[in-house]
Formats: sequence, C-alpha cells, structure tokens
Amino acid sequence: MTTDLNVIGQRARAAARKLARLTCEQKDAALHMIADTLLEQQEAILAANAADLEAARTAGTSKSLLDRMLLSPERLATIAADTRAVAALPDPVGETFDETVRPNDLRVSKRRTPLGVVGVIYEARPNVTVDIAALCLKTSNAVILRGGSDIRQSCAAITDVIGAALERVDLPADAVQSITDPNRELVGALLRLDTYVDMIIPRGGAGLHRFCLENATIPVITGGIGVCHMFADATADVERAIPLIHNAKVQRPSVCNALDTLLVQREIAPALLPKVAAALSPAGVELRADPEALAILSDARGDNDWKIVPAGEQDFGTEFMALILSIRIVDGLDDALDHIALYGDHSDAILTNDPEAVRRFVNEVDSSAVFVNASTRFNDGGQFGLGAEVAISTQKLHARGPMGLRELTTYKWVAEGDWLARS
Amino acid sequence: MTTDLNVIGQRARAAARKLARLTCEQKDAALHMIADTLLEQQEAILAANAADLEAARTAGTSKSLLDRMLLSPERLATIAADTRAVAALPDPVGETFDETVRPNDLRVSKRRTPLGVVGVIYEARPNVTVDIAALCLKTSNAVILRGGSDIRQSCAAITDVIGAALERVDLPADAVQSITDPNRELVGALLRLDTYVDMIIPRGGAGLHRFCLENATIPVITGGIGVCHMFADATADVERAIPLIHNAKVQRPSVCNALDTLLVQREIAPALLPKVAAALSPAGVELRADPEALAILSDARGDNDWKIVPAGEQDFGTEFMALILSIRIVDGLDDALDHIALYGDHSDAILTNDPEAVRRFVNEVDSSAVFVNASTRFNDGGQFGLGAEVAISTQKLHARGPMGLRELTTYKWVAEGDWLARS
Repeated sequence: MTTDLNVIGQRARAAARKLARLTCEQKDAALHMIADTLLEQQEAILAANAADLEAARTAGTSKSLLDRMLLSPERLATIAADTRAVAALPDPVGETFDETVRPNDLRVSKRRTPLGVVGVIYEARPNVTVDIAALCLKTSNAVILRGGSDIRQSCAAITDVIGAALERVDLPADAVQSITDPNRELVGALLRLDTYVDMIIPRGGAGLHRFCLENATIPVITGGIGVCHMFADATADVERAIPLIHNAKVQRPSVCNALDTLLVQREIAPALLPKVAAALSPAGVELRADPEALAILSDARGDNDWKIVPAGEQDFGTEFMALILSIRIVDGLDDALDHIALYGDHSDAILTNDPEAVRRFVNEVDSSAVFVNASTRFNDGGQFGLGAEVAISTQKLHARGPMGLRELTTYKWVAEGDWLARS
Repeated sequence: MTTDLNVIGQRARAAARKLARLTCEQKDAALHMIADTLLEQQEAILAANAADLEAARTAGTSKSLLDRMLLSPERLATIAADTRAVAALPDPVGETFDETVRPNDLRVSKRRTPLGVVGVIYEARPNVTVDIAALCLKTSNAVILRGGSDIRQSCAAITDVIGAALERVDLPADAVQSITDPNRELVGALLRLDTYVDMIIPRGGAGLHRFCLENATIPVITGGIGVCHMFADATADVERAIPLIHNAKVQRPSVCNALDTLLVQREIAPALLPKVAAALSPAGVELRADPEALAILSDARGDNDWKIVPAGEQDFGTEFMALILSIRIVDGLDDALDHIALYGDHSDAILTNDPEAVRRFVNEVDSSAVFVNASTRFNDGGQFGLGAEVAISTQKLHARGPMGLRELTTYKWVAEGDWLARS
C-alpha cells in the first residue's frame, strides 16, 4: 500500500490532542473559516467534482447516483450554511455531570471529553465530507474520512480546502484527513487501526455495516437500517390514522424511518384497510397483504386502481426503501408485540386510544424509538431536538437512535482528594 | 459442536423479553431466592468444585490459581450476601430522562431499558458466575456465561442452582445460561452470535481482550488493563505524597488501578525519591529508575536495602501487576502530559499544590479516571459510589471507567404525539 495508515493515524492522534485544548470560540471560528474558504475556493472543488462525474458517466453510473455525487455553487452554499449552523450549536465538551462528594471527601464527577479520533466510511455523497468534518471539529475530534472511490477527487479537493481553512486559524490540517487512495484494502486496514482510531461510523447500506462489523477491531456504530412498523389497534381513530400512515410511507420512502409494515388488529381492519388503500394508491404504493387483509382489500377494491398483491413471509422483515407496504392482520397487542420483537429494532409506532395499550407498547417494544400516535418519520435528530445528526444508531451500546454532538463524546472520571490514600 | 449456540441464543432472547417486563420487586425477590438456594444447595456446588479442583491439581495447576478456583461454605456465604446486596441497589431500568416537548407538541424522552442479552467470558473464578448473573438479572438482562474450562463443573452446578431458584419464583431459567462444553471453538462462535447477543464483557487478561476484539462481531467492553501514572510536580507536598504513592503501589499490586510509573519533576526529585525508596522498600518494591533518578537513589541509598535497578524503555508502558515501580524524571507538566499521552489510558494522578497544574492535568490527560492528590486505587465502582461494578472500561464508547448497573442498560426514545404526522 502506498498510503501508510499508521502515519495518518499518528497525525490524527496528534491533532486530536491539540483539538482537545481548544475553546468553543476557537472551534466556532474555525467552522466559519471553513465555510468561508469553501465558498472562496469553490472552483477547485467544482473542477474535481466535474472530473469525478465525468469518470462516473463514462463508467455508466446511474442518473440518481450521479445526482448524489453532484456539487454545484448552490449545493456548496447550502453546505457552507450547514457548517455555520454547527458553529451555532452548544458545545458538549467540558460539561461536568453526576458530581458527588464521597464519604471520605473525595469529590467525584464526570467530564464530557472528545472521543479522540473518529473514522467515517461513506459512499457517493461528497457533502458528507464537510458535514462530518464540522461535527467532529465541533466536538474536538480528529477525523479520518473514507469516501466512496467514485468521489475521491471531490473528497481530496474538499479536504484540501478544509485543511487550508484550519491552517488559516492556526489549527492542524491533520484534524481532517481523507484516504483517497483507491486501494480497497485500505478500508479493511482502517477498521483495524485501533491504536489510533476510537470509533468507526459507517454511512451506507447494510453491506457496508456488515463488512465493518465483521472486520473492525474498533467499536462500530451501526444503524440507519431497519424495518419500521405501525400497529393500529381496535381503538385507533381511523380518520386520524390515515394521514400518519400516509406520511410514514409516502413522504420519503427511501429513508430508514419510512414505514415498512402495517399491523392491524382484526376488528378494525374492515374499516381501516380500504381507507389505507384509497389514500396510498394515488401515491403509487403497492400493498403486500396477508390472506385476511388481501380478502378485505379485494372485496373493497371495486373499480379502484389499487396495487394489491399477496404478501410472502419475506415481505415481513424487509426494509423496502420503496413505495411498498406489507400488511398483516393481528389478533391484538400481544400478537403485534411478537411480530415487532421478531422484525423490529428501528422505529415502531402504535395508533390507539387505549392508555393500557400505550403503556405496554412503550414498555415492551425494544426499538431505538417508540412512537405513540405519531409518524415513524419523526425518528430524526432534528425532530428530537439534537440540532445535528451524525447517524441513527440501531445498536444498543453508546447511543441509540439519532446521534447528535453529545454522542460524539465520551467522559472521563475526575476525582479530587485532599492528599487521600485509600484506607 | 454438540452445543448449539443458536438454541442458547434464542432461549436467552426469549428470556430477556420476559425479564424486561418484571418489576423491581420481582427481580429483588428472585435475587434473594438465588441467595437462599445457593446456601440450601451448596453441597452440589461444593462437590462439583471439588471435582474441578481435583482435576486441576492432577494437571499441576499452581497454588494461587487453585485458590482462585476454590469455593467453600464461607465463600458461598459471602457470594449469597453479595447477591442480596445487589437486590438492595436501586434499579436503573425504566428511568425517564432528557424529556422535552418539541415545538409541534411531540413529547420526547429517553427511557432506560435493558441491553437484552449479555455475553460474559471469564477465567477461573466461579464466584463471577453468580456476581454477573445477579447484576444482569437486576438490570433485566439475560446472560450467557462462559467460564474457564478449569471451573466448568463448578459453573454448571452454580448455573443449575440459579436456574432452580429462578423457576421457584416463576422466572425463566434461561435468563442465566452457561456454556460448559469444553470445546474452545465455542468462544469464537459466541463472539459472533450477534443475532442474539448485544454486548460482550471479557473478564480476564490482555490476551482475552485482544481475542475478543479480533473475533467479535458484537460490541466488546474492553478494560481492566492499563498503565497507571502518578506525577509529582515541583509544588507537591513531599510528606503527604508518600502515603499516596505507597497506597497506590503496595496495597494491592495485582489489580488494574495499582500504580506502575512515578513521574517526578526534576526540582523535587532529590527531596522525594529517597523518601519513596525508604517507604516502598520495606514492602519489597523494586524501583526501576531512569538514569537521573537512579543517580539520586544510588547517592541516597547508603546502607539501606533498596532494590534499585536501571529502567529500560520497556519499563514504561508496562502494567507490572507486581511490586515493581518505574520512575522517570520529567522537566515539568508538559513532559509528564506527553509521557501519559503515550502510555496512559486507565488511571492517572497528579500530586501538586498548583491550581493551574490541576486545571491542565484534568483537562488534558485523556484517561478513564484522572486524580488530583488522591490514590489511583480509587478508580473503583464502590469508591465512586456505583454500588456494584461489572468491569472497568478503558475504551471510550458506551462507558468509561467503573461500570455499574446503569452501564448494563441502554435507552430507547419515546415520542408521544396527538395523531401527529410530520409536516
């Protein structure tokens, strides 16, 4: 390998020590300088991006992927504005919490500190380079970025500009490094660079997450993937349920908090399902229904242009990322809870007017976010008030659900004594 | 493999769902029943333990290891009492925190929940079987235990007794399972059982931790290993420093928070080092000193029976687990911080009367616990007020330093709306 990851790791670690000593004001000034420099030096970035796009077009890359790769003056302006928005967020580093004085007068507290060095592996979105760099800088973490090989010229140019901005404010350019060498073995090597890297965040599909879990010796934050459920029980308000189901399925079907499976208690199915079909069909949603739901929908279809097909078992437990909804009739809450225990872990909602069902659903569903009479689409850092979102975690350690700035930190214990030895 | 880990995993997962629904009172009653049953059925446990010891003795196992393996009526009584002590601790599961109401009236909070299924791999201490089972039960986690092969009959007997106790209070015996099949490949397989297991805690030496990191696809809590430092700056109070250094090195040299390296600012070395040698030598401590420290100690030795040897670079960055202390003279705080940044991550202390040195040391040392004028031996769940300790983590994700009951939990987001769709 021509790229020496140990050198990159050592530089990142050295930069992290310097970042840990910065004040919030210094970090915010650096973020504004990055925004300024991105706009000032946009020609170099746009030229590199044009070269990436040209190569991708020649290679026959799909239109939707080309659009994801594309940078423009407008998009760069948005990226710069997002960077300034990160500067405006409160800095979690240095917060003291859980302070106590022990019986021997030892004063014990926890202090929030940077993680150190974060590794981020992502795909064809060059904006992620700036987005992650800003969030890591705000939390005094150095970052090693590995963008998809199809955007490597864009990533290199953006990283150069960020480095130049950091140096303008006397911060180490090594705080943000990109691995742009196309050698794919470097990804595996990065995952094992545990001497220098404290956390890996994969931003991509299930394959990337699995690859990271299989190969990393560094803790990996997995997430952004999951089957989302809504359960409408017999007491649900049919008229008010429809907009929620519509929103959760239709608003943005390609994202991780979009609805995949609707569970309907038997008693309410004849009233609810035809309205679901009537509301979702104009948006082009295909309904994959279990036999009972299929019978109800077929009876109600009449001349309507509803796409209804029988569901196979594989339609449950599938994250569709598309305008497809699987539907199952359940006996009641226990049946729904069993189904969700089997297939859920991301975002699951109950639609009900029964307080006891709310209590049990909230207690017993073991997912990153549980919703009561609200759309699963709210599982989002912005909606939950985090200000920024690094990832949505579906694992249980460290952070679960939307991860904001605080989730890019750890803590250390601080214990102050008056020349105390342990007795 | 005759042991089917998938079956064990499925049973653990099913038990975890039941545990998640228990009240604190039910869990505490189960813990008292485990204590009662351990005492009631101690003959079976002691017989199994005698068989393990007999086999180990035949295999030529060392005396100290045999003592670690040994159970006795007295030790079982202590184990039972410890189990009742866990029952007396507050239950973190179900706590609600970070509650906010969003501008759209979505009520968002976090609720503390069990992790689910915890895997614990440990060595020749049969008491760990009960200890971990109690802490996991208290936090509604199912647990899969893998004790060292030399105590497998003891583990099997203890697990049987715990299972019997759980069934007496109508809880699933599968909440606590032990893998007692001696096939070593099962450890590797457990580390990859990510469909069912949420967290792995290795309780053992550096080799076991490394093996887990290399092979696990499940998040691993690493820790319990590290080089601990004390830095005495020029303002340190020599008379008051000696008892702290003595305590940190001598009280229990075989544990992870025992002192390994003493860093001394040049100005105070002639006053401090001879007193360190005089205090530590009667306890049998060998001092491995850098050239400057060696010269001071040699000059001061006179007729004293001090063990002083030159330190090699390998004596820094070594966790001794023995009555050995490495000593280095440093120029001052920056030099000490550089040394600790290179070798430390566990427990590091400053001995000083300079408030600015305190501020910088606390801010800049990036270790699980930082001490000011106090012994590193305080890095302990009991001393920090956690009530119980599962492990001491030196990694940065999830938990750092002593881990108590709360660190055996995760959280889920709960969002309650009034039939809210995202706008």
